[in-house]
Amino acid sequence: MSAPEKFSGVLTPVITPFKDDFSPDQHRLENQCRWMLSKNVGLAVFGTNSEANSLSVDEKIDLLDHLAGAGIDPARMMPGTGCSALSDSVKLTRHAVGLGCSGVLMLPPFYYKDVTEDGLFASFAQVIEQVGSSDLRIYLYHIPPISQVPISLGLIERLIKAYPETVVGIKDSSGDWNNTKSMLDAGWDDFRIFAGSESFLLATLRNGGVGCISATANVNPAAIHALYENWRAEDADDRQAALNDIRGAFAAFPMIPALKAATAHFSNDAQWARVRPPLMSLTEAQQSELIASLKERDFDMPGLIEAQDQAAE
Amino acid sequence: MSAPEKFSGVLTPVITPFKDDFSPDQHRLENQCRWMLSKNVGLAVFGTNSEANSLSVDEKIDLLDHLAGAGIDPARMMPGTGCSALSDSVKLTRHAVGLGCSGVLMLPPFYYKDVTEDGLFASFAQVIEQVGSSDLRIYLYHIPPISQVPISLGLIERLIKAYPETVVGIKDSSGDWNNTKSMLDAGWDDFRIFAGSESFLLATLRNGGVGCISATANVNPAAIHALYENWRAEDADDRQAALNDIRGAFAAFPMIPALKAATAHFSNDAQWARVRPPLMSLTEAQQSELIASLKERDFDMPGLIEAQDQAAE
Repeated sequence: MSAPEKFSGVLTPVITPFKDDFSPDQHRLENQCRWMLSKNVGLAVFGTNSEANSLSVDEKIDLLDHLAGAGIDPARMMPGTGCSALSDSVKLTRHAVGLGCSGVLMLPPFYYKDVTEDGLFASFAQVIEQVGSSDLRIYLYHIPPISQVPISLGLIERLIKAYPETVVGIKDSSGDWNNTKSMLDAGWDDFRIFAGSESFLLATLRNGGVGCISATANVNPAAIHALYENWRAEDADDRQAALNDIRGAFAAFPMIPALKAATAHFSNDAQWARVRPPLMSLTEAQQSELIASLKERDFDMPGLIEAQDQAAE
Repeated sequence: MSAPEKFSGVLTPVITPFKDDFSPDQHRLENQCRWMLSKNVGLAVFGTNSEANSLSVDEKIDLLDHLAGAGIDPARMMPGTGCSALSDSVKLTRHAVGLGCSGVLMLPPFYYKDVTEDGLFASFAQVIEQVGSSDLRIYLYHIPPISQVPISLGLIERLIKAYPETVVGIKDSSGDWNNTKSMLDAGWDDFRIFAGSESFLLATLRNGGVGCISATANVNPAAIHALYENWRAEDADDRQAALNDIRGAFAAFPMIPALKAATAHFSNDAQWARVRPPLMSLTEAQQSELIASLKERDFDMPGLIEAQDQAAE
């Protein structure tokens, strides 16, 4: 097997569909992945917006196995594998590498707060040592508003220095452009910096970053990828503004249920609206308001219904 | 099997020992549990201070099975079973009930923040419905400084009303006496309210609470239990002050490594000092400072060495 290629471009934390009993729906997930790939969007399955932290490691392994078995290319997958428990992170990461995933997106352990940089370094180091594979490529996942456990610039430096072949990138979901800019200015050799959403995609690309990993790429993949492809074009700022407008329509609601409500509507498949507790689906009023807001913007999800038909239950 | 009795008194989140490879050490855990029981302290294994959220569900199930197999009475156990993932909480809770544990201590799902009361209600309700056992007794675990997901008075009311036989108590680790007092004043019939540490033990007992679940009961079990037994005695305030003084000596350091450093010192077993990343052991200087501080207070852990010898490796 050749060494995994580093990621660039647009990826999405693929939304995870659930059945009536709240178990994961592997067929609908496969469909969504196919639709993403058809729009040139890579598969950061098991991200925050995938409700991944509401899934057990065994559920995630089963889903990965299903996707790989269904012919979804693991080389396009960057599954989230950072868990609260060290042993869970090791198990899931090892499985992802074994399947041939080109990388993993790794949260720090997120239950204990105010942990030290030494402790976080030891945690990532233990995962790397215990997985023990030269094919492992880690993209760090910095999302302090939710994890409440930040990954500092100092920690990144230490990890790159200790594991230069393994720790190869980061998703910055801090929502703080100054933080992203500091990373971009740090001069880390071919370290892949992804914006945490398309809101900072153009700014990130103009400053040496490689793309974005964005929740809204689940619903607006083509336009986001088009900005990635055309960021040097004259209309790039207009494209960014249009992306921001669509994202704003979703961000007026809780993001995960809103993504699922739109997917349910445009795929004509109500099952997509289900979320796993502790999240709640949008109310009917919220759904109507969201869809109305999207229609005002001439928003559509072309190709979605066709993709949804590909894998029969 | 008769219905589980409700808990009262002093329990502790039993510290979890690790081997050199960071795997859980079942024999040392068994020893610590025996020592706790010999001091009349119940076993809230897999609490925050047990580093439980650094352990996988399978590791916790293996440890529970070992303890039960070694003759530790499950009726004295209140394992922590609330995980980030709904499916993990169901699996672990079901296993604990099957073993005969008299109750479980349940965190809310703690990754997603700013979730609604409806969402948290649905999460606890799903665990209860999916476990589906009349033997399940849940003690809620309110620890917003770490979980960052509070359990409001309104949510408690709803859960008690919906599941009066199942949701039977709470550990309040908010650190906010006003919150504990509001619970104690709420008039919930025989709802068992535990202080989150011995700091509020006397105040809790004087206001109708039933005890405490405290990290420092790992190291100071006899004196804490003695206050529980003698809270109506004239010297109760003096006892509380003495407990506070000892707790203060530990709280001058990161609590979990400090508990383990003291256990290592007084058991003459350095292996106890190991923590799992992202936590870090105390430095040698910190250890010396802690032990000196404890010796100034004539602190000891009588019976610990004898208990440590009971289960051979």
